Amino acid sequence: MYQQIPYTYGYVPHKLTSKEVVQAGVSRTLAGIFNSQFVPWKLHKPGSKWEPELSQGQKWLQTLQITQSGEDKPSAFKPLAGEVDESYNLTVSAEGDVKLDAVSSIGVLRGLETFSQLFYQHSAGTFWYTPYAPVSIRDAPTFPHRGVMMDTARHFFPVPDILRTIDAMAWNKLNRLHVHVTDSQSWPLVLPSMPEVSEKGAYHPSQTYSPADIDAIQKYGAERGVEVYFEIDMPGHIGVVSLSHPELIVAYNELPYWWWCAEPPCGAFKLNSTAVDAFLEKLFDDLLPRVAPYAAYFHTGGDELNKNDSMLDEGIRSNSSEVLQPLLQKFIDAQHARVRKAGLTPITWEEIPLEWNITMGQDTVVQSWLGGSSVKQLTGKGFKVIDSNYNYWYLDCGRGQWVNWANGGAFAMGFPFNDWCGPTKSWRLVYSHDPTANLTADEAKLVLGGEVAVWSETIDATNLDTLVWPRASAAGEVLWSGRRDPATGQNRTQMEAAPRLNEFRERMVLRGVRASPVQMTFCTQGTPEECEYAL
Amino acid sequence: MYQQIPYTYGYVPHKLTSKEVVQAGVSRTLAGIFNSQFVPWKLHKPGSKWEPELSQGQKWLQTLQITQSGEDKPSAFKPLAGEVDESYNLTVSAEGDVKLDAVSSIGVLRGLETFSQLFYQHSAGTFWYTPYAPVSIRDAPTFPHRGVMMDTARHFFPVPDILRTIDAMAWNKLNRLHVHVTDSQSWPLVLPSMPEVSEKGAYHPSQTYSPADIDAIQKYGAERGVEVYFEIDMPGHIGVVSLSHPELIVAYNELPYWWWCAEPPCGAFKLNSTAVDAFLEKLFDDLLPRVAPYAAYFHTGGDELNKNDSMLDEGIRSNSSEVLQPLLQKFIDAQHARVRKAGLTPITWEEIPLEWNITMGQDTVVQSWLGGSSVKQLTGKGFKVIDSNYNYWYLDCGRGQWVNWANGGAFAMGFPFNDWCGPTKSWRLVYSHDPTANLTADEAKLVLGGEVAVWSETIDATNLDTLVWPRASAAGEVLWSGRRDPATGQNRTQMEAAPRLNEFRERMVLRGVRASPVQMTFCTQGTPEECEYAL
Repeated sequence: MYQQIPYTYGYVPHKLTSKEVVQAGVSRTLAGIFNSQFVPWKLHKPGSKWEPELSQGQKWLQTLQITQSGEDKPSAFKPLAGEVDESYNLTVSAEGDVKLDAVSSIGVLRGLETFSQLFYQHSAGTFWYTPYAPVSIRDAPTFPHRGVMMDTARHFFPVPDILRTIDAMAWNKLNRLHVHVTDSQSWPLVLPSMPEVSEKGAYHPSQTYSPADIDAIQKYGAERGVEVYFEIDMPGHIGVVSLSHPELIVAYNELPYWWWCAEPPCGAFKLNSTAVDAFLEKLFDDLLPRVAPYAAYFHTGGDELNKNDSMLDEGIRSNSSEVLQPLLQKFIDAQHARVRKAGLTPITWEEIPLEWNITMGQDTVVQSWLGGSSVKQLTGKGFKVIDSNYNYWYLDCGRGQWVNWANGGAFAMGFPFNDWCGPTKSWRLVYSHDPTANLTADEAKLVLGGEVAVWSETIDATNLDTLVWPRASAAGEVLWSGRRDPATGQNRTQMEAAPRLNEFRERMVLRGVRASPVQMTFCTQGTPEECEYAL
Repeated sequence: MYQQIPYTYGYVPHKLTSKEVVQAGVSRTLAGIFNSQFVPWKLHKPGSKWEPELSQGQKWLQTLQITQSGEDKPSAFKPLAGEVDESYNLTVSAEGDVKLDAVSSIGVLRGLETFSQLFYQHSAGTFWYTPYAPVSIRDAPTFPHRGVMMDTARHFFPVPDILRTIDAMAWNKLNRLHVHVTDSQSWPLVLPSMPEVSEKGAYHPSQTYSPADIDAIQKYGAERGVEVYFEIDMPGHIGVVSLSHPELIVAYNELPYWWWCAEPPCGAFKLNSTAVDAFLEKLFDDLLPRVAPYAAYFHTGGDELNKNDSMLDEGIRSNSSEVLQPLLQKFIDAQHARVRKAGLTPITWEEIPLEWNITMGQDTVVQSWLGGSSVKQLTGKGFKVIDSNYNYWYLDCGRGQWVNWANGGAFAMGFPFNDWCGPTKSWRLVYSHDPTANLTADEAKLVLGGEVAVWSETIDATNLDTLVWPRASAAGEVLWSGRRDPATGQNRTQMEAAPRLNEFRERMVLRGVRASPVQMTFCTQGTPEECEYAL
């Protein structure tokens, strides 16, 4: 039943205003403090005294004064990386006066979130307190692009699960939701101009995103400072289009799959087809104007294109890079021109420039996933980069093979059935990653940030929360605060991060997200040293 | 809020009757068919025809005739392994007459569960059908002990989560829930004779099992053919008793932990202490009569006793096996005598006979976890064995370290922060395990079955379901049906198991258990060959 949680939202296209965004933020902040019932007994030794006395003369919060010093730009709710100033100053005086100053309404949201996380509920009941006042916080993000990538094609995610993910992202000051909305497995995206694509390509009529869904998801994000942008992965990873438009696709569901692509079902666009071009013209004319009001970016994919596919293309019959590269160059040029025409900035996966040596405009952002020297190579070529190094930030990894291995030779070869990218990226491993490691200062400037990836071969609504949270929180801290502590210049340590993550995980659970436990209660109640591997 | 789901059940001690067990089973069966809304579109290609026509002349189920040919023994709801006949015959005739025959009421429950799994709901609404009639099923378990071990000490599990686990176990024909109810981390078990132990030792007053809770859990299990038995792990893994009875424990929370035990906090009973003996006399007098009405077994633990602990014991001051072994022999003799006196059969972990060479009665069941040749050694010594080989059946493994690694040498040593028992045991790896592999026929006869283990360092109510199910189902099939297909003598294959598991996972989710997906919907909708790694 978890896939069928009822939800309602109105499809009322309107422009968000700064005022309503801040007002809604204040409401959520108060709800976060007063409704989540966070009595933090899991953070203190049993029997110890950690709550304020209710009978002694407390000081009460008197005022909450919010000042937005700048006027939001037109791009406030669809910013390019860095276009919105997310910094804020928050002070709680000894007298109980709260001041929150920010340049933008998004900065106000970030400050309100921090404010909400200062409070606990008292075990005696309807009393709330902060042990942290007086306090003064000056805060700003290290990286402007702090994201989660969610694959809605291998498994479909109902809208409420996406909205809940946006909620948790906002609590974590993550600001980009990259929706990998189609792939060779399914096409959940309803295109009013070509309804047959999702009618044939979705797993089921219930497993689709209508224009109203897309609008609601983006607006829900924008209201929380989370920009939702979409990816149509191409020219590989698009086999499902064959179900409605077989003339556009080669190698759909060819077997054995590993000869034609990385995972079943295979399928790629024909690289030299006017029909493909016409299809994409129609697709982009339909989709891009709908997503542009709340996104600065559109991701055209480009990972893992298998050259063998074009051997089945009667118009090409070759797997030679020399033959394919110019065709791909033309393909990318055409699609990126369409993206720009719609007022959006293109993003591609790293193979397009690095493996295929495709020339692209310097506005293009490149998403890196292969680790190693990729980020250095890309920034060396002058590209802006989003880092999703699979060795650290692929949250789906390490839970085993999902393809079947018949008895006999295959079984022996597959045993013990590890997947390609294990081990599981524990929060400690996620937290150890610095997207700017081994870069020069100039190269580092081109790193916009990063995204954790949630490929969904074995993830759906039932286990989404437990796999994303709190591991994405660990990446979120790296992206907001930096892997290194500016005060010491040293890498941040698990010894300090573990207690923070233990606490924040409790907040997330109490706010309705099933984040996995970080450590056993003995550890959350004790000091980090009591659960340390000390040499 | 997930830890705080309200629940109610009456504490009305009464003897279960066969009639009420079967009647309740029938009610659950009908609910399972009619309430779970299992329209199996995830198991068929989109657009394909797979449902019966509603307008054609269907045959209707006419009768359900249940015959229990034997009378339930007094031990029916607390059987030793093999004491209850769980076999059944189920036929659905072409005319719609259903006959279910079994020797025991538990056999009836097993047959009813199978019956419920023959049905689907029609997408048109309130119509249900089976495509499998006429059918005749003769079914019986391969192993009599088919279990899940749940650790409620590292993280506490609220009663509703345990009951839900029992539900899912019954759907999977698993029949033993082993509750590892205490450990060095916490003592959730309320002892009316010594309330101080849980008052000091529980993580929080809300994190306790009252006698009413224990009774309710056991009775809930017994009604579903799931015997719930308990483990007090000792003489190691019991440090928490130090909080209420410091005089009984050595090495509580000593650091660095790895010198004194396998994980923090350390702590073991003094091995030569009359005070410890008196404590255990009182503990067992309190607990054993309460659990004996619905359990045949009591587990006295015995894993990972670290010899160094006794160096801190002022009565021993030695870590020599020659000194410690006779003391441990006396300790085990005393505790097992108490278990037997309460009418229960003792179970220990394998280290007691294999590492410490302790002599035990041949009634004792030994639980093996270390893999390798352990099961062969134990059966060679004539012990009955429960197999929980950690290389296959430890469901907590492979998700990373939970202790903290400070920057510097520890960080370098810990990176990439894998846990001790990775990789994650995917269902394919779980399913590949045969508890009787490499045994002689005589040795194999002593293998009662196995248990998957759910150690809870990083598992609590939020992620319990997703980690246990459907992987425990894969072990369940091995334990019920055997790793090998008796018809072919060959190991069962993933090619046939994957579709079964995909389907059963859907049933579990719709019945309210958040089982993780096995494969992406493309695979569940297609043939196993479409998602096969074929050579």
